[in-house]
Amino acid sequence: MTTPTRIKHKGREADPVLVVGSVAYDSIITPHDKGDRILGGSAAYACLAASYFAPPRIVGVVGHDFRDRDRNKLAKRGIDLDGLLTDASGRTFSWRGRYHENYNRRDTEDLQLNVFEHFKPRLSPAHVTTPFVMLGNIRPDLQLDVLNQLSAPRFVLADTIDIWIETQRDKLAEVMRRADLLVVNDTESAKLTGEDNTIIAGRELRKHGCKTVIIKKGEHGAVLFHEEGMFALPAFPVTELRDPTGAGDSFAGALLGYLAASGTTDFAALKQAMIYGTVVASLTVEAFSTDRLAKAGCREIRARRKELLKLIKA
Amino acid sequence: MTTPTRIKHKGREADPVLVVGSVAYDSIITPHDKGDRILGGSAAYACLAASYFAPPRIVGVVGHDFRDRDRNKLAKRGIDLDGLLTDASGRTFSWRGRYHENYNRRDTEDLQLNVFEHFKPRLSPAHVTTPFVMLGNIRPDLQLDVLNQLSAPRFVLADTIDIWIETQRDKLAEVMRRADLLVVNDTESAKLTGEDNTIIAGRELRKHGCKTVIIKKGEHGAVLFHEEGMFALPAFPVTELRDPTGAGDSFAGALLGYLAASGTTDFAALKQAMIYGTVVASLTVEAFSTDRLAKAGCREIRARRKELLKLIKA
Repeated sequence: MTTPTRIKHKGREADPVLVVGSVAYDSIITPHDKGDRILGGSAAYACLAASYFAPPRIVGVVGHDFRDRDRNKLAKRGIDLDGLLTDASGRTFSWRGRYHENYNRRDTEDLQLNVFEHFKPRLSPAHVTTPFVMLGNIRPDLQLDVLNQLSAPRFVLADTIDIWIETQRDKLAEVMRRADLLVVNDTESAKLTGEDNTIIAGRELRKHGCKTVIIKKGEHGAVLFHEEGMFALPAFPVTELRDPTGAGDSFAGALLGYLAASGTTDFAALKQAMIYGTVVASLTVEAFSTDRLAKAGCREIRARRKELLKLIKA
Repeated sequence: MTTPTRIKHKGREADPVLVVGSVAYDSIITPHDKGDRILGGSAAYACLAASYFAPPRIVGVVGHDFRDRDRNKLAKRGIDLDGLLTDASGRTFSWRGRYHENYNRRDTEDLQLNVFEHFKPRLSPAHVTTPFVMLGNIRPDLQLDVLNQLSAPRFVLADTIDIWIETQRDKLAEVMRRADLLVVNDTESAKLTGEDNTIIAGRELRKHGCKTVIIKKGEHGAVLFHEEGMFALPAFPVTELRDPTGAGDSFAGALLGYLAASGTTDFAALKQAMIYGTVVASLTVEAFSTDRLAKAGCREIRARRKELLKLIKA
């Protein structure tokens, strides 16, 4: 399928993907390892993940301390950096977190919003026409502002986090109604609906205005709730967990990238997109930061997809 | 396929299934309901579940208080009760448990072994030739004793519980080596291997002598570890959870019943058997005790199987 929006990316044609979110320096401590000020943030992970399928356009802000080598890491994957502003008045958003035994729980030990605090996404004329859009977990009022700037969105994926469920519930509800797909984890779906049962929570979210919902359950996989039915997918069987940071953003980025590449967004396409999202997330968590994600090859992604399909074949 | 062991059951031919385990009176309190001295026990649940596929033979003991209507409930499903001893010297094994909000946790409030305390399974000459055998979660030394009495087991499924992992580790290891399939939940697999990660735990169990392993994860489904590969299956999407008691035994019973009916025990058959196990377990948890399980129809089982297959279709 060729439409006016499709452009060449890594040798294939695909619709571009716009990702609005955070770009951060993460300091991460796990039971086995640690990393200091490594590239992170929802938009960085999502764009790198999407880049295996479609040309990503990042919209975010970094500070004067943002390193050239991190910019190059993104550029090398074909990510359009025109929307990545540098605010010389401050430092890049930074987060320090610690994972506990078995990675079941993490604590935020430090969080400095820095230049991200006053970030207001302004889309360029070239970007407002992007058909596939991911609203990363920024404030819901900013997500709405981005939605209002878009001239012809074909498919909008929205993510969120606990704090916006608590503090901007109404605005978030509007985002959820306007987006085509809400991607949340099971803690967030429980908080949004008051229902711990994932199946009930997913159905409730659709009842309250979400067109389509995916609830992520970490090592237990993810469930898609669509008007044509549900689809339950296990996680890829990762046994070398190193750093779960960015798994959810990688999942969403790869999922949206696949949709943009395939040019379709129906139930069948969403299932395939979830499979690719699951595979790419499994690569992310096997190394610190974006290391493995930025270096994975399409061959590796294809091999894992095959393995995942074998795992679920009845 | 017709072999000398196959017998007529509910209009079809199937190999018989021998189930050794507890028959109990359960008193159950959930956040929404309660039931007093209702029929339970691993062998009762497993036999009722198996009865939809193959003729079950129950081996267990009850006391002088065992009610005729419960005996009839089992007989009506074609369960051979010759191995269900009545020990007139005491009362039936009884258990009182309480489920907490969301059914994530249960507490045992009272447990009376009664006649079950000195139970020593003695198989009749007619029973020792049974080809398909489920060793319910009784003491591992008794499980071994049953294994030694069998003259021609084709496929043995073994279950266990936390207390035997703690107190009879060596005997349990021998059961695990001699059985064809170990079915445990994720808490038990973690306790057996020291690994919380289900994938690692399942592989470890196979490395240490189990031929084939299934790890059950409750609402997150189950994973099969087989020499030919893994198979991950989500739970059936239950939204009317009433009483989780017996879900695991129903899963195992239906699984073994399906194998006995199909007459095959390879990787492909085990996957199908897991699907039926998952479906029958979903019926069990939608009502108190064995109520729904004893009354489900084959049509209902087939309909849920279709729904489950749709849920996992990529």
